[in-house]
Amino acid sequence: MSDLPEEFRRIARHFRPLAAPEALDLLDDAALLTPPPGRDLVLTADAMVAGVHFLPDDPPDLVARKLLRVNLSDLAAKGATPLGYLTTVSAPHGTEDAWFAAFAAGLAEDQRQFGIALLGGDTTATPGPLTLSLTCLGHVAHGGMVRRVGARPGDGVWVTGTIGDAALGLRALQGDLPDPDGHLADRYHLPQPRLGLVRPDLVAACLDVSDGLIQDLGHLCRAAGIGAEIEAARLPLSDAARRAGPDWLETCLTGGDDYELLMAVHPVAEPAIPSALPGIRLTRIGAFGGATIRVLDAAGIAMKLQRGGWSHF
Amino acid sequence: MSDLPEEFRRIARHFRPLAAPEALDLLDDAALLTPPPGRDLVLTADAMVAGVHFLPDDPPDLVARKLLRVNLSDLAAKGATPLGYLTTVSAPHGTEDAWFAAFAAGLAEDQRQFGIALLGGDTTATPGPLTLSLTCLGHVAHGGMVRRVGARPGDGVWVTGTIGDAALGLRALQGDLPDPDGHLADRYHLPQPRLGLVRPDLVAACLDVSDGLIQDLGHLCRAAGIGAEIEAARLPLSDAARRAGPDWLETCLTGGDDYELLMAVHPVAEPAIPSALPGIRLTRIGAFGGATIRVLDAAGIAMKLQRGGWSHF
Repeated sequence: MSDLPEEFRRIARHFRPLAAPEALDLLDDAALLTPPPGRDLVLTADAMVAGVHFLPDDPPDLVARKLLRVNLSDLAAKGATPLGYLTTVSAPHGTEDAWFAAFAAGLAEDQRQFGIALLGGDTTATPGPLTLSLTCLGHVAHGGMVRRVGARPGDGVWVTGTIGDAALGLRALQGDLPDPDGHLADRYHLPQPRLGLVRPDLVAACLDVSDGLIQDLGHLCRAAGIGAEIEAARLPLSDAARRAGPDWLETCLTGGDDYELLMAVHPVAEPAIPSALPGIRLTRIGAFGGATIRVLDAAGIAMKLQRGGWSHF
Repeated sequence: MSDLPEEFRRIARHFRPLAAPEALDLLDDAALLTPPPGRDLVLTADAMVAGVHFLPDDPPDLVARKLLRVNLSDLAAKGATPLGYLTTVSAPHGTEDAWFAAFAAGLAEDQRQFGIALLGGDTTATPGPLTLSLTCLGHVAHGGMVRRVGARPGDGVWVTGTIGDAALGLRALQGDLPDPDGHLADRYHLPQPRLGLVRPDLVAACLDVSDGLIQDLGHLCRAAGIGAEIEAARLPLSDAARRAGPDWLETCLTGGDDYELLMAVHPVAEPAIPSALPGIRLTRIGAFGGATIRVLDAAGIAMKLQRGGWSHF
């Protein structure tokens, strides 16, 4: 391959070892996939830009894993089983080979963890910041995908894991908050896609919390044409978030990047929820109903929030 | 939707009208696709960066159409029928709404032309140049995809259309070459994916010419473990390229961005090729065989080329 330009050598060196059989050794500019019979495909794509979605000096392996996981999180919210992914990497001129090696090592680690492989993609140079895009494919039983629309009045508002850690982690990395054991920064760097939980018989509507709990709750409410009332005191907080103190509660409610699942659960299904994903805390924080979104404080008074969430523009 | 951040309003305004039914109005962060029964899926992804793959002041509708068409061209080379696409757009802070309107209008135009629709994607801001990524899905009969590997000694080297116009068009746009009727610039801005030509009974191996004819011929040869000999005098040139004169021949041979198809065709199938895609010129420029790639000039002497093609790094 000595007559090949560096772009192709780099792909062969770092990305070919990640390739699924369907990727045809990344030699064909295309993957060839026989879809699982009788299943629907679920497709999702996200972009991430250095300085916008991650810090420019974040470790490349963690950037790679976050890129993959934010997409896996979308599949988790749909109840889909991951199948594979395509990724495009636009890297600043002169990006060192070691960067690509570390980036690929992060992908390899998560490929093992989630049982998926690379299907294809593209690498280009850019005069700007590192810019990444990833398209993830999953599959669900035909007709079995859970959507954002579907919440009804009286359904419980449930969340997985703990809320707010990622937003606090970003602030900790920026020096605004102590984070002695690094728990908050870890949660910012490495989302945990909650795969295997969402099933249409359990969950009426779902999305993952990427824009902030309140804004994402707004998405579920808007899709259903109803409101919701949640109690801030029920918000599942990590020990690290509790230590940050009540001044940071609003950041937890409105900060992005948690990638926990936010679900509408019919009362009949609620008893099954707490044990539905072994090892993962599942918390009921309120109920759908009414015409607006209300967040009650510990005294039962509706809180006024400065902002509803995060938009990249 | 007045309580929604601008990012979501922009998606609703410009991208929702492009959405396939499977895109669920772009409200779900995921598309839900029932694959065509008995067909294999073909998946391809490409990234494009302003200033690298297109000129920063190129019209946004043409940028959109080129982004879509470079991927459709990959599907064409595989013999696949396009199904739909996901795209991510990382636009500089402050990009005006009119830019998104024009970009979406370009996608809409080509969606009509190629019978496909948007399945999903993402929009983000960037402090860098406009950076685009697109993943395209197509389908082929099970087992019927044409690959890069497959050329055998004695197969003809065939190309669609004319070669070199896009590279000359870029130079014309940079002021290095006259282009009175804009033909060359048009060919740079708007590739013509040659869908509907490639079938496994006609074409033994194929790719689209994106890196330059010689480099892409090298890809076919390397996959097959053989060489090829082509005659520069047989290269199909447009009138505009002929007018540029012989000094530009090497640019035509090695320049990128043509997105014409380069094929290996078994002698038995060759008689069917010239009329296989109505309205499109199909030209035999040489044959596979030997151990190296040789380009003969009009006198039958092997040309020495300065460079083999284009790599983005």
